[in-house]
Amino acid sequence: MQKKLEVYFSFRRRINAYRYIEWLLEWDQATIAPKASAKYRSEQIEVLSEELHKITSDPKYIKVVDELYENLETIEDTDLKREIKIAYRKSQVVKKVPKKEYIHYQVILAQSTAIWAEAKEKDDFSIFAPILDEIVQYNRKFVKYLQTEELKGYSVLLDIYEEGATVQKYDEFFDTIKEELIPFVAQVTKKNKFKFNKKLTKNVYPRHEQKQFSKYLTEVFGYDLSRGYLGESLHPFTSGVISDDVRITTEYEENNFTANIFSTIHEMGHAIYDQQHDPKYNGTLLQGGSSYGIHESQSRMYENMIGRSFSFWQLHYPKLMELFPKQLKGIDVVEFYKFINQAKRSLRRTDADELTYSLHILVRYEIEKMLFEGSLKVRDIPKKWRQLMQMYVGKRPLKDADGALQDIHWANGLFGYFPTYALGSAYAAQIYHAMNEEINVDSAIENNNIRLINAWLKENIHQYGNSKTPEELILNATKEPFNVHYYIDYLKRKFGD
Amino acid sequence: MQKKLEVYFSFRRRINAYRYIEWLLEWDQATIAPKASAKYRSEQIEVLSEELHKITSDPKYIKVVDELYENLETIEDTDLKREIKIAYRKSQVVKKVPKKEYIHYQVILAQSTAIWAEAKEKDDFSIFAPILDEIVQYNRKFVKYLQTEELKGYSVLLDIYEEGATVQKYDEFFDTIKEELIPFVAQVTKKNKFKFNKKLTKNVYPRHEQKQFSKYLTEVFGYDLSRGYLGESLHPFTSGVISDDVRITTEYEENNFTANIFSTIHEMGHAIYDQQHDPKYNGTLLQGGSSYGIHESQSRMYENMIGRSFSFWQLHYPKLMELFPKQLKGIDVVEFYKFINQAKRSLRRTDADELTYSLHILVRYEIEKMLFEGSLKVRDIPKKWRQLMQMYVGKRPLKDADGALQDIHWANGLFGYFPTYALGSAYAAQIYHAMNEEINVDSAIENNNIRLINAWLKENIHQYGNSKTPEELILNATKEPFNVHYYIDYLKRKFGD
Repeated sequence: MQKKLEVYFSFRRRINAYRYIEWLLEWDQATIAPKASAKYRSEQIEVLSEELHKITSDPKYIKVVDELYENLETIEDTDLKREIKIAYRKSQVVKKVPKKEYIHYQVILAQSTAIWAEAKEKDDFSIFAPILDEIVQYNRKFVKYLQTEELKGYSVLLDIYEEGATVQKYDEFFDTIKEELIPFVAQVTKKNKFKFNKKLTKNVYPRHEQKQFSKYLTEVFGYDLSRGYLGESLHPFTSGVISDDVRITTEYEENNFTANIFSTIHEMGHAIYDQQHDPKYNGTLLQGGSSYGIHESQSRMYENMIGRSFSFWQLHYPKLMELFPKQLKGIDVVEFYKFINQAKRSLRRTDADELTYSLHILVRYEIEKMLFEGSLKVRDIPKKWRQLMQMYVGKRPLKDADGALQDIHWANGLFGYFPTYALGSAYAAQIYHAMNEEINVDSAIENNNIRLINAWLKENIHQYGNSKTPEELILNATKEPFNVHYYIDYLKRKFGD
Repeated sequence: MQKKLEVYFSFRRRINAYRYIEWLLEWDQATIAPKASAKYRSEQIEVLSEELHKITSDPKYIKVVDELYENLETIEDTDLKREIKIAYRKSQVVKKVPKKEYIHYQVILAQSTAIWAEAKEKDDFSIFAPILDEIVQYNRKFVKYLQTEELKGYSVLLDIYEEGATVQKYDEFFDTIKEELIPFVAQVTKKNKFKFNKKLTKNVYPRHEQKQFSKYLTEVFGYDLSRGYLGESLHPFTSGVISDDVRITTEYEENNFTANIFSTIHEMGHAIYDQQHDPKYNGTLLQGGSSYGIHESQSRMYENMIGRSFSFWQLHYPKLMELFPKQLKGIDVVEFYKFINQAKRSLRRTDADELTYSLHILVRYEIEKMLFEGSLKVRDIPKKWRQLMQMYVGKRPLKDADGALQDIHWANGLFGYFPTYALGSAYAAQIYHAMNEEINVDSAIENNNIRLINAWLKENIHQYGNSKTPEELILNATKEPFNVHYYIDYLKRKFGD
């Protein structure tokens, strides 16, 4: 076994180097790389992917992972045990999906985002439909290759992004959301007639001062810039492959300054999670967070539960007024608080508030499920989309650009991924509840002591990196299995006011 | 031959990808990478260097390059011919230097900059001496491995950075400089008693406005940001491996605002050169510029001849005053022009002005020459340094931190590199003279039409990338061989006033 592990480690050492540069190339491309460099860059990425694929598809590598997996019981170290399980999971794709199909799929994906962008630009789903259909077909094939006795159909995809997730579990989750939230949203949005000071949306908030405020936020939240970086990109994101280098980006829109604030806080939620795992996981498959859902739970907790709380703004609104004295003149903290917590029906997921967000995800979940059950054809997606939006969100898009074409995810081949966004919010509520049993979260926020919250999360979630499954983590941190009612209760309490 | 070329191209394709990520890793490290990531990063770089070395030392690669080189006369395309020559030159190092020694040398280099930094910090040359001695020993060995009938000793190193350069040629060059400049500097610095307004050095010039001015400069000079990027780093530099992605950095010191201005212009000189070569050279060994000297000629021409000219500031000083109205109040363009063109004896190369700069290089050249002739021992460098500084620059450092320890270059193993800095300035003067015969450079500057200068340089220098040797390029652009007297004349004219 020792010899086999050494073989495994020497492969892992090489794989890590390629993952590292893959990460850096992506970071660079999304932040500062000049557009004109795209072609040459993609040619280099192609070579490097080939080199990496040579390693991960090396029969010696596949064999050693298989053998270690078959002898898992002889490995005592639980971390190493889990790592081998994950390596095995990953190697299944290389092993079971024919190389030719896999490569052709990559070629399709490389073309699809440009086609999607064109379709969205022209508001014409028929431009996107043929390539989307190919992507779905490929995913259907992959499902067939990868499915097991326990895991079939769409569940195969769900499980990739959220280990342990199945259609059955998600159905249960979304059923509760449907039952509880749809009528509640109707109630809340009916009452909501507050007229906000137009300065909030019409004034210009210069980049320079917005930058100063995001810098200020990094200090308030304890996002460690000696092991991170705050950059800028079109779509904010967090990225890193070791806890000592976790970078985030934000966006600066001069007439939508809260976009910067909440993007920064959201991404810091992801980043603090990744910065706080045990450093021993760096260079292993247990680096980073547990699942997409758990990761999203952290970003949403920081963004919504902390960052949109009244306690938070009571303390920090004066700083914002100091930076924007003219723009915010006459707007008090109560109005600002209400402004950043408006609940209203919107067409776009990215415009959705905390209350209605999961209903947008529900639409996507049901469409994906139908696609993989075979009860929906790609060309019929727009119609279904409009119908479900009307039913769940209560608003019907007139244009597909505001409907089925709004998100890039499917063009990237991401099926089974959207549901983790909703699940993350629900995890967040349960974790927040458990944290509140042990520390006074509101008082920590009021006393500018978010580090106390970070410490609790480190102790109960972050330190573990990917060494536990989502289920284990939730149980460990909250002392009970996942329960969607914390989420429902949280939303009803907050938006019931 | 066709088959051999195909083999060569397929190797080149892979090598390019590794060079690309090497470039990106260096860029990232020098600009935004958090310090804490250094260890993990260097481990990944180690793996990637191994992977690249596997390719460049592959006997199949060495063999195909040898065979192509031996059959050069059968290749008709002159660009391809030159590329094979360059590939052959490069492969000599891998072929002739024993792998063990090469790798050990890399390990030493990886440690040496930290040791150098400590020595400089503590002003103690004896800390740096042992590892510097090892570096010199290795370079002496490499010289032995690489020398040929025509090229021996220190000339082997000179030729690496400036193709065609030899001790004999540099001796001639520096002899003229000694003869002509040393007495001239004595004359100029004696007269120089102008007292500048203290605001120029004592006022605070905020980063934000400095950034706006560098942005303004990119437009004035026509540095194409759609194929570049203006970043920030401790030591400004230019970097890129294709003409569509040539990035520069600058520095912002709040009480030394001209550092930003002239760094930005200097690096744009490098960058515009790299942006303007024929795009067909991307992905080949003819990409980028011809030699270090030619490259430096461009950066110094933009920085000194254009950027420090009176015509330039007559036009752009109002913009500077607009950004710094309080700081520059009462300082007119004549005073500012004199301020940025002061000639004075300084201890540090990086503080040196246009007039005395080459004398600083002369000190380094003579020391390197003695080291490789064997007439100087590493431990005796500081003494020799003080002596030569007194003789040539007329100023003697009291501390080695201001003397032999000031530059990082030797810690990086760069011997034979410094002289290109002086040669570059001399090339610049000759090229500038030739350009002036064909276009009215001053009027282009006065009319905010630096694009005309860019166009001339593109036509006569830049477009060729590395497809011509420095000698060919100078002859092509100026219609005569290199002549140091243009440089002497230029300096005497400018500083004679």
